[in-house]
Amino acid sequence: MAIIECVPNVSEGRRPAVVEALVTAIRNVPGVRVLDYSSDPSHNRSVLTLAGEAAPLKAAILALFEQALATIDLRTHAGEHPRLGAVDVVPFVPIEGVTMAECVALASETAKAVAERFGVPVYLYEEASTNPARKNLEDIRRGEFEGLADKMRNPEWAPDFGPPAPHESAGASVIGARMPLIAYNINLATDRLDVAKKIAAGIRHSSGGFRFVKAMGIALEDRGIVQVSMNLTNFEKTPIFRVFEVVTREAARYGVKVLESEIVGLVPAAALVATADYFLQLSAFKSDQVLETRLRQSE
Amino acid sequence: MAIIECVPNVSEGRRPAVVEALVTAIRNVPGVRVLDYSSDPSHNRSVLTLAGEAAPLKAAILALFEQALATIDLRTHAGEHPRLGAVDVVPFVPIEGVTMAECVALASETAKAVAERFGVPVYLYEEASTNPARKNLEDIRRGEFEGLADKMRNPEWAPDFGPPAPHESAGASVIGARMPLIAYNINLATDRLDVAKKIAAGIRHSSGGFRFVKAMGIALEDRGIVQVSMNLTNFEKTPIFRVFEVVTREAARYGVKVLESEIVGLVPAAALVATADYFLQLSAFKSDQVLETRLRQSE
Repeated sequence: MAIIECVPNVSEGRRPAVVEALVTAIRNVPGVRVLDYSSDPSHNRSVLTLAGEAAPLKAAILALFEQALATIDLRTHAGEHPRLGAVDVVPFVPIEGVTMAECVALASETAKAVAERFGVPVYLYEEASTNPARKNLEDIRRGEFEGLADKMRNPEWAPDFGPPAPHESAGASVIGARMPLIAYNINLATDRLDVAKKIAAGIRHSSGGFRFVKAMGIALEDRGIVQVSMNLTNFEKTPIFRVFEVVTREAARYGVKVLESEIVGLVPAAALVATADYFLQLSAFKSDQVLETRLRQSE
Repeated sequence: MAIIECVPNVSEGRRPAVVEALVTAIRNVPGVRVLDYSSDPSHNRSVLTLAGEAAPLKAAILALFEQALATIDLRTHAGEHPRLGAVDVVPFVPIEGVTMAECVALASETAKAVAERFGVPVYLYEEASTNPARKNLEDIRRGEFEGLADKMRNPEWAPDFGPPAPHESAGASVIGARMPLIAYNINLATDRLDVAKKIAAGIRHSSGGFRFVKAMGIALEDRGIVQVSMNLTNFEKTPIFRVFEVVTREAARYGVKVLESEIVGLVPAAALVATADYFLQLSAFKSDQVLETRLRQSE
């Protein structure tokens, strides 16, 4: 059995009944499970976490668009988070028994179906991107819904699928494939913010650190400590344990100890298995030795 | 969804067609998965690993007995491994979403059904044992099939279920509940067998070590190194990481490094998640943050 995760972000976080209806539309699709969903009223945005195989997930995203288009109107939508459309972003994420290439194909098929059925222009992003200039979500979303009609007049911003102008109420959507994101923080036993900031600068990609780390140093003022707050964007290539070991070593250079670390939200089991493998110096350990993995493979 | 593992050991390891028929009998039970099976001809014994919920597993074990009684006769069986019956041992093991008490109840119900349907006497063992003197498998099995009729004349060896004498061809069976067993070895970067033996003696329960560790020191002569070879019989109470850390420290006392460690066969994901949690100093990590666990919970 393949497991693909899908994390649609929708532009509604203030009307619980509308969000519930979106979730229900997805739950009505056999073979798709809703693992989690949460709404942020100040962002006026909700994030859903789904899992399933390719065909049911595609059907679920089409059901989500149908429901979202009936209930969300970007012309009257306001919130702190940047957004381009009613169903703003839809990443497909390979978890188990499935390749990134298959998730890219799923993203493309889903984008095509969304454009054809609903007349919403769709941009492909990240691994599914067909154009290096619009691989990053931030670049595609710049200008937001309000600037979209102007932006799309530029032929460079012709969508991958659908009409060359925004959908009147639903804007445009960004659909793609990416690795799982791990929100990972390391708390230091110090109140010295400069230490957290220097360590963050040392390990993040943008200033010379690991390829798949975004990091910043912040103060946890109520606790009197500081934190290296991170997103790990590819745990296979930049694994948790390596980040932990380097942060520990860099902290020691300032005479500071790691107090604890934390994983926020969901994490693929493989990221933790790789961590155990590293610290136990496991020899020739295979993922199908994990009982639960074998269980899924036997389905 | 509950996941219970069941690891029946059957007294047949030389006739592949007979073993295949046993596996097929189990596979025909809906809701049960055969994760693994392997035969040892010198032991003349096969070990099957099944998983499922309580009711299907009970049905699978009854199907296994029916098939085994038709094809295995202990009166003509010989092999190196001690055995009491055609279906020799059946442990139920809690993996996820199920308590040990539920596995004990399942063992007892299954034992009762086996005795009633097939007239095979059954002893309950380990966590399902009703009698401290016959908690250990080795004690129950002492004397083997050949000594069973004599042994059962002693009222202390009246079975928990079924007739007070052996089944003519199938002997008796031992059914119970236990924690998952982890076969775990640590290889040392030395050829000094005394070091492996001293470390094994220090960590095993029988000589003063951890409550749930069985250990011995052995030489891996083809590689010119030594190994601390272990069974961890309760990874929740004596976790892998603690054993690894203590062996590493004890080895250092002899100027020896850990070369690598290895997990043989299957391991519950929880044992590896606990290891990652320990080494990363995770704060307030919950098992339902593991994506795959959340996935099963949503079933």
